[in-house]
Amino acid sequence: MTTSVAVVGAGLVGAGWAIVFARAGYPVRIFDGSDDIRERVRGDIAANLADLEKFGLIDAASPVLERITVHDCLEDAVDGVSYVQESVFETVPVKSEVCAALDAACAPEVIVGSSSSGIPASAFTEELTNRQRFLIAHPVNPPYLVPLVELVPAPWTDPVAVDKTYALMEAVDQTPIRIYREVEGFVLNRLQGALLNEAWALFEEGYASAEDIDKTVSHGLGLRWSFMGPFQTIDLNAPGGVADYAARLAPLYHSVAQDRTAPKPWSDDLISKVEAERREALSKDDLAKRRSWRDRRLMALAAHKAMASQDLGD
Amino acid sequence: MTTSVAVVGAGLVGAGWAIVFARAGYPVRIFDGSDDIRERVRGDIAANLADLEKFGLIDAASPVLERITVHDCLEDAVDGVSYVQESVFETVPVKSEVCAALDAACAPEVIVGSSSSGIPASAFTEELTNRQRFLIAHPVNPPYLVPLVELVPAPWTDPVAVDKTYALMEAVDQTPIRIYREVEGFVLNRLQGALLNEAWALFEEGYASAEDIDKTVSHGLGLRWSFMGPFQTIDLNAPGGVADYAARLAPLYHSVAQDRTAPKPWSDDLISKVEAERREALSKDDLAKRRSWRDRRLMALAAHKAMASQDLGD
Repeated sequence: MTTSVAVVGAGLVGAGWAIVFARAGYPVRIFDGSDDIRERVRGDIAANLADLEKFGLIDAASPVLERITVHDCLEDAVDGVSYVQESVFETVPVKSEVCAALDAACAPEVIVGSSSSGIPASAFTEELTNRQRFLIAHPVNPPYLVPLVELVPAPWTDPVAVDKTYALMEAVDQTPIRIYREVEGFVLNRLQGALLNEAWALFEEGYASAEDIDKTVSHGLGLRWSFMGPFQTIDLNAPGGVADYAARLAPLYHSVAQDRTAPKPWSDDLISKVEAERREALSKDDLAKRRSWRDRRLMALAAHKAMASQDLGD
Repeated sequence: MTTSVAVVGAGLVGAGWAIVFARAGYPVRIFDGSDDIRERVRGDIAANLADLEKFGLIDAASPVLERITVHDCLEDAVDGVSYVQESVFETVPVKSEVCAALDAACAPEVIVGSSSSGIPASAFTEELTNRQRFLIAHPVNPPYLVPLVELVPAPWTDPVAVDKTYALMEAVDQTPIRIYREVEGFVLNRLQGALLNEAWALFEEGYASAEDIDKTVSHGLGLRWSFMGPFQTIDLNAPGGVADYAARLAPLYHSVAQDRTAPKPWSDDLISKVEAERREALSKDDLAKRRSWRDRRLMALAAHKAMASQDLGD
């Protein structure tokens, strides 16, 4: 069933979501409070679609772009849609205001997924009339190249809203996961944070350069992790599977964790040192160019994964 | 300068190393204490080389195989080599015995790199005559598909031995990193362990299924990490680079770390639950087949990375 969806807040994240839905055939209705963003968002999207076409990730850019319309007010944008992806600036006051407006403008059965990367839905939906329709649908950036979406209900979210959003995300070729209850950082940023905290600590203690710590992932751990998760990986790393692996290595990992029972914040001095090492490798002026490079590498990887998955299975 | 190298201990890891060196044009002299392994190792290697040829990762299997010889005693294997990759069973007594034999058999200028994944070189080289020539050169499995090699000196390792091993690893297309002093788990397993510990804890606390935690990496974090490390990744995740990112997110990651100041060992009950979920997804009988699938996916990924790096840069 193809109904239309609304994207409210059309910065980088919202524009990325518009591509996800339109690529899958859904009419997408965009609203953003900024005149400037409303004016340029279709042009920005067109540039991204051209790249996707070049990498063979979509057949043609123009039919996708044609499904995307931009509207001057929120009420227009949500007219007739069955799902709203809220992607406004991530502060409690901004989310609260926009979600109240959405709650007033949308029929009760319309579901609202928030792109919030850290603030849980309970922090900005508690007082709403139809608060049961709100949940977190946290993407990775850009969502049309990195498919994971974390679905996180507030305590009052209707399980049916979660199920429907899960089905919608699968229908638009994303990879939804269910987080059963709210937790700070959700799952993705907690896993990333655990690895980052260890990386910063190893750098601070002088065990290796930031560049070499980076290589440990980009030429080591990250290769398997690009198609297998951490449990799947260790399940194949001992003859008898994950329990066999745990019997061999759990003591090492427990011991390593014991070194980190008094976590320090990343200090200003530490941040300056990492910043200095990064700026030597990549000047500030080249950051934007490097971001485009990353997106092209992600496009090439997405094309590779689709082919490998077809040839070799998942 | 192409001299020959010896691989001592020719299980999975040693056989993988033989491919790395022979692929790069080095004559490789293998010794293993087991008659059985000495008898079948070239056949096992031939099968791996056939796969590599199929994926376009080597031009032809036979010249690589021809560079590999198997020897009946350790002294024969190390005759005339400039480097030994020690890959015997990972216990202190076994490593100690083999390294003493290597120290007696090799001229003082021959360097010995140990494949040890966790035991530091200081634990099994302290009493040796030429202990300055020993260091850790820890690969990822299989080393001919995952290029990272951790170089870890003991306190008495000659810095020149580290430099020469670094140059050798680059010459054979591996990606060496320098760890400045010994640390439990080195860098790779500490980073993996940090993420694993958080993954096990999130599963134990009922936030998500193991399958969904896996997807968070295989369809999320792991994509960027297959070509960028953790610092490089966050350097592009805020407009102003890594310092800007830290200003925004360091408090979140510090707060998340505060939840893990009393790390528990992975309990038997927890391990059973993860094992049960994995065995439902993949039966024990299919583990070996799945390992071959993983290696084929790694081969396809290596071919993809080589092409992307040529087309789009690193």
